Amino acid sequence: MSSTYGNIFKIHTFGESHGIALGVVIEGCPANIPINLKKIDFELQRRKPAQSKIVTQRKESEDFEVLSGVFEEKSTGAPIAIIVKNENQKSKDYDHLKDVYRPSHADFTYTQKYEHRDYRGGGRSSARETLSRVIAGSIAEQYLAQVSDIKVFSYVSQVGNLKLDKTYQELELSTIDSNDVRCPDAEMAQKMYNYIDAIRKEGDTIGGVITCVIKNVPIGLGEPVFDKLHAELGKAMLSINAVKGFEYGSGFDGVLLKGSELNDEFELSNQKIHAKTNNSGGIQGGISNGEDIYFKVAFKPVATVMKNQNSVDKLGNSTIIKGKGRHDPCVLPRAVPIVDAMARLVMADFFLRNKLTKV
Amino acid sequence: MSSTYGNIFKIHTFGESHGIALGVVIEGCPANIPINLKKIDFELQRRKPAQSKIVTQRKESEDFEVLSGVFEEKSTGAPIAIIVKNENQKSKDYDHLKDVYRPSHADFTYTQKYEHRDYRGGGRSSARETLSRVIAGSIAEQYLAQVSDIKVFSYVSQVGNLKLDKTYQELELSTIDSNDVRCPDAEMAQKMYNYIDAIRKEGDTIGGVITCVIKNVPIGLGEPVFDKLHAELGKAMLSINAVKGFEYGSGFDGVLLKGSELNDEFELSNQKIHAKTNNSGGIQGGISNGEDIYFKVAFKPVATVMKNQNSVDKLGNSTIIKGKGRHDPCVLPRAVPIVDAMARLVMADFFLRNKLTKV
Amino acid sequence: MSSTYGNIFKIHTFGESHGIALGVVIEGCPANIPINLKKIDFELQRRKPAQSKIVTQRKESEDFEVLSGVFEEKSTGAPIAIIVKNENQKSKDYDHLKDVYRPSHADFTYTQKYEHRDYRGGGRSSARETLSRVIAGSIAEQYLAQVSDIKVFSYVSQVGNLKLDKTYQELELSTIDSNDVRCPDAEMAQKMYNYIDAIRKEGDTIGGVITCVIKNVPIGLGEPVFDKLHAELGKAMLSINAVKGFEYGSGFDGVLLKGSELNDEFELSNQKIHAKTNNSGGIQGGISNGEDIYFKVAFKPVATVMKNQNSVDKLGNSTIIKGKGRHDPCVLPRAVPIVDAMARLVMADFFLRNKLTKV
Amino acid sequence: MSSTYGNIFKIHTFGESHGIALGVVIEGCPANIPINLKKIDFELQRRKPAQSKIVTQRKESEDFEVLSGVFEEKSTGAPIAIIVKNENQKSKDYDHLKDVYRPSHADFTYTQKYEHRDYRGGGRSSARETLSRVIAGSIAEQYLAQVSDIKVFSYVSQVGNLKLDKTYQELELSTIDSNDVRCPDAEMAQKMYNYIDAIRKEGDTIGGVITCVIKNVPIGLGEPVFDKLHAELGKAMLSINAVKGFEYGSGFDGVLLKGSELNDEFELSNQKIHAKTNNSGGIQGGISNGEDIYFKVAFKPVATVMKNQNSVDKLGNSTIIKGKGRHDPCVLPRAVPIVDAMARLVMADFFLRNKLTKV
Repeated sequence: MSSTYGNIFKIHTFGESHGIALGVVIEGCPANIPINLKKIDFELQRRKPAQSKIVTQRKESEDFEVLSGVFEEKSTGAPIAIIVKNENQKSKDYDHLKDVYRPSHADFTYTQKYEHRDYRGGGRSSARETLSRVIAGSIAEQYLAQVSDIKVFSYVSQVGNLKLDKTYQELELSTIDSNDVRCPDAEMAQKMYNYIDAIRKEGDTIGGVITCVIKNVPIGLGEPVFDKLHAELGKAMLSINAVKGFEYGSGFDGVLLKGSELNDEFELSNQKIHAKTNNSGGIQGGISNGEDIYFKVAFKPVATVMKNQNSVDKLGNSTIIKGKGRHDPCVLPRAVPIVDAMARLVMADFFLRNKLTKV
Repeated sequence: MSSTYGNIFKIHTFGESHGIALGVVIEGCPANIPINLKKIDFELQRRKPAQSKIVTQRKESEDFEVLSGVFEEKSTGAPIAIIVKNENQKSKDYDHLKDVYRPSHADFTYTQKYEHRDYRGGGRSSARETLSRVIAGSIAEQYLAQVSDIKVFSYVSQVGNLKLDKTYQELELSTIDSNDVRCPDAEMAQKMYNYIDAIRKEGDTIGGVITCVIKNVPIGLGEPVFDKLHAELGKAMLSINAVKGFEYGSGFDGVLLKGSELNDEFELSNQKIHAKTNNSGGIQGGISNGEDIYFKVAFKPVATVMKNQNSVDKLGNSTIIKGKGRHDPCVLPRAVPIVDAMARLVMADFFLRNKLTKV
Repeated sequence: MSSTYGNIFKIHTFGESHGIALGVVIEGCPANIPINLKKIDFELQRRKPAQSKIVTQRKESEDFEVLSGVFEEKSTGAPIAIIVKNENQKSKDYDHLKDVYRPSHADFTYTQKYEHRDYRGGGRSSARETLSRVIAGSIAEQYLAQVSDIKVFSYVSQVGNLKLDKTYQELELSTIDSNDVRCPDAEMAQKMYNYIDAIRKEGDTIGGVITCVIKNVPIGLGEPVFDKLHAELGKAMLSINAVKGFEYGSGFDGVLLKGSELNDEFELSNQKIHAKTNNSGGIQGGISNGEDIYFKVAFKPVATVMKNQNSVDKLGNSTIIKGKGRHDPCVLPRAVPIVDAMARLVMADFFLRNKLTKV
Repeated sequence: MSSTYGNIFKIHTFGESHGIALGVVIEGCPANIPINLKKIDFELQRRKPAQSKIVTQRKESEDFEVLSGVFEEKSTGAPIAIIVKNENQKSKDYDHLKDVYRPSHADFTYTQKYEHRDYRGGGRSSARETLSRVIAGSIAEQYLAQVSDIKVFSYVSQVGNLKLDKTYQELELSTIDSNDVRCPDAEMAQKMYNYIDAIRKEGDTIGGVITCVIKNVPIGLGEPVFDKLHAELGKAMLSINAVKGFEYGSGFDGVLLKGSELNDEFELSNQKIHAKTNNSGGIQGGISNGEDIYFKVAFKPVATVMKNQNSVDKLGNSTIIKGKGRHDPCVLPRAVPIVDAMARLVMADFFLRNKLTKV
């Protein structure tokens, strides 16, 4: 079970939802990067449960400890290991799930694949694993800050059928965190909030779309052929729990236009060659062209609902399953920092890879 | 410039559009797999230019030569190297493109990144590179045939706004190759054909969507966390030239439904546990659940159009570019075998990785 | 700074000598392997300081904690993370070394390479890192026990000029741990003990040779060309602190013999084909042939001596350095479990790789 | 069967002794490196058969063809593929070896491992594979020439019991190629020549030692922990056919000295800090310290002898095997360019990795 992401800036995550601890080992972060632990904490706060009424009210520890690789507040070049201990590992709470397969969860496939799994709270398949990613993403951000002006802005652009019809250029991206939904449009954010709250009261769940914009990207990031910049972004996003789709630039809608309509013509502006339009989404031939990168990520509704669902146990006997405890009616607000983290990890990796291109 | 795909069943492709030869080295194919060269040729014929009126009429060699790794018509376990020599390497035909940046091509980004490139016919960024993938995909198919009943069916489901509204279950997938468009619905295929032909006469281009279905997938393929089955499928598809989006199972449309509506309940049927519905697209927690895998891939229109477009040369001087020669008005019919190939490569790789799961 | 070893059975180690903790993440251990923590502890006891008079008397914690990947005393297939917290992280003890370069240590090269390092106790370059390897090696041993009868026997065969002139076949390998030196010849062990003790009193250090024998190896482990079994064993051994040489089978002495003298003829014995002699050291063409594998590893004397040595500080000023504290006069006895661990990690990795050879 | 070497500057070799062609794909060579094909040819001439009376008189093609990755005599950053076609693929010459296991060859282990192999001339296990390495090593050399003054000097320092007792400092390394043995001491070279010629007439074979010196190495190459510079050099050398041992710096003899005798003290000289002595072999803590790197590689005698040897066929029946054709009585003179090539590949890889150390 590989739990490694990245080629040069590599992360290895570990830990189960209700095990002793989760964590991450970051290999390949260059030496001498100032590491500010508060920035890690800031991102963890954006991901944490119980931050508002429309997310899960579970109590989970987010207290992290840096075990290695940082000395006198700077990276040493050695692997950076960071862990978060789990509290309240009450495995008994999950005994009722030990032998049943929850619909659209990973219970069935993990059991078939491994024939032995830590079923407590989803074990390794739990979205609590993304804690490790958010920690690593913050280290990636701090590296990127030393070598670029890259800024990553992810926000909720759709919840159910509530779809923001403004482009990212029409939004004030600095306001993303100003509401609980993380939608930088106050009016739409309120509608989404009300809708999620209604879904929550129903005991149901709803999905949505996160849009991500990456600004100030230098020309030349991404590797041709298989490791195209958008292919890696796509893989990174699709590896997040509950993600079902990815598109960048003109995406699926671009198929409606002709080449002559969609092509991005080049022009000289301020002594620099750049594309007049940006249907390419900032990436041409798999390599950044200096324009903004933007893409969309589709999340399905959380599988755990507070309603009766038919399923079977491991012997195939019919059973009724109903979610207990405190689950997210909509994962989107808490998924924003995860999309940010993965985008930063991808960019950090390509920054380093790009150093190898020329002498 | 990494040109490697795969973890265990690995391919390394090489070659430029107008260089001496293109090719692929396949590492990790197990020993003793019967290798039938006619199957490679069959797939190359599906990809080749000039196979119908609606694709490019360029003449290109597809004659391949197996250099190593196959003995007495079986794989030996050693690397399998296969090459295709290029004919007519008339680099002068491309002299006019040497210093200009074609809109929405990779000319600009490659030049910026490497400061030296083989510009002839797009060089390494040319879609002719996919020849290597199709060859390798056929080897993957021949391996898969030894260990499974997996069948991969890709077909054109949308061209411009002509969208097939039938699900894959309603189609006869064995008819995919019965028309030039590779759409398994005769009526829609004809409409698409006419549309592409009209686009061709205009000197313009159009994009579309390919749907891929993978049947007879055993339970347990795919690796948790970062190398989820759909994340690798997504990366593999997004690495194909002109691809702008990927979705699997309920995809982007799934965000409109509630968890209680979208979840796939389990049942016992014929003594086997399986999901009654398949919004999961055959994958749960990143691992195949035994149901059909299905996904969609969005292709933008080909960037080369036979119309005047504004652009600049490498010094930033304005210039007019107009496509010459023989280009595809719509890449979809020829992209079908490429999607097939990449899907098979992903599946072959996960089959081998799955051998490592248990003792 | 890569800290990863292995291809399938992979380990990622982290931690500095005087940081918060050291540890290891093990990826690729198959699911369902019984994990006995006492076996880990047993190996750590063999490596620990102060186990006898002839090793360092430092006090260090060896208490480990399994954070993930083990559930109900079996591996789950998920990454296994194990840490050891450091005690007494008195960094002030090392302030005097902050700016000087100890002869034949890594101080100078690390400082030049990274321009920032955790100098406390050698930081990442300290042999305390091998703690992580010994932990991982025990997991590898427990995996190997499920799939083979492989036994690894490492022992001290030379200290200074005291060289055991018996072959491994003439020794009782079960007695390795019966003396403090870990030499399975009581008489020679006593001589070595006395010699090391005399060296210790001098305040000096001495090197030696560890011989490793691997028994019950199935035919077929090792991969042709670059990843030959002995090439990986060589790399693994050479990666251990203080190692300066590696030879297997006939080794350096084999250059004195002719092909007709050195070749291992095959014969049929007990219905099995095997080699009559074993100058090949159990490996032919990089692949195990079923005979015992044996090799030798040369260790230089520990660089820290309790005598005055000339050196310079980071500005180039001359200085006198003299070891303080409690160091090993001879690292060999404590290096035996490290050689064992690395040999097991190599074998575990090749066992898994070998599953990929045939359908 | 992995046939890949390197982390950043990576090579993938392919081809069998008597197949259609052998070759190599080089990934990771930076763009814009001037590529001079004559330099490749020069190294191939040093490795080729029939270059003198004391090497095999076989006729083999060494004509190579560059298929990709080089444009206008410079690397483009794309994979560089180079092949050499085999001539005279008379597989019938090897029919007598199809079912027998030659002593100390890879016939037995390959057959057991893969159950299907190309037995002609040793197939993939043949030392003809090193042709691919020598080609790649020349590309590495041409890259190194752009970024450093590194010079690699390998020479034959021992044949049988004829051992050169001068250190490399006492030799004129520019004279290595001035005699057929490649020993830079005319008198010893003549002795070795006579000895090898006598061995040849006997129909026997003999091994020896190659010493390699790398000069003008910058400080900082090599990665801590597992990928130490000497560990990678060791693996690279041990991966060469017939190699049985590797030692660097003080090597096996260093175990006879005490720490106080062996340590390399630092001093300031010409405003630079450097080690007064070089028992470290230019590497401390796995990282180059700026001094000369030197190491020794032990080669066993070639397994094919022109004398009767007992062996068995694949059914276990006793048989007599006697070498036919034209084999090397001593592989050392032709192994010198292979050691050079592998050393350059290791250095090129670490040069690129070192770019990732700091911002």
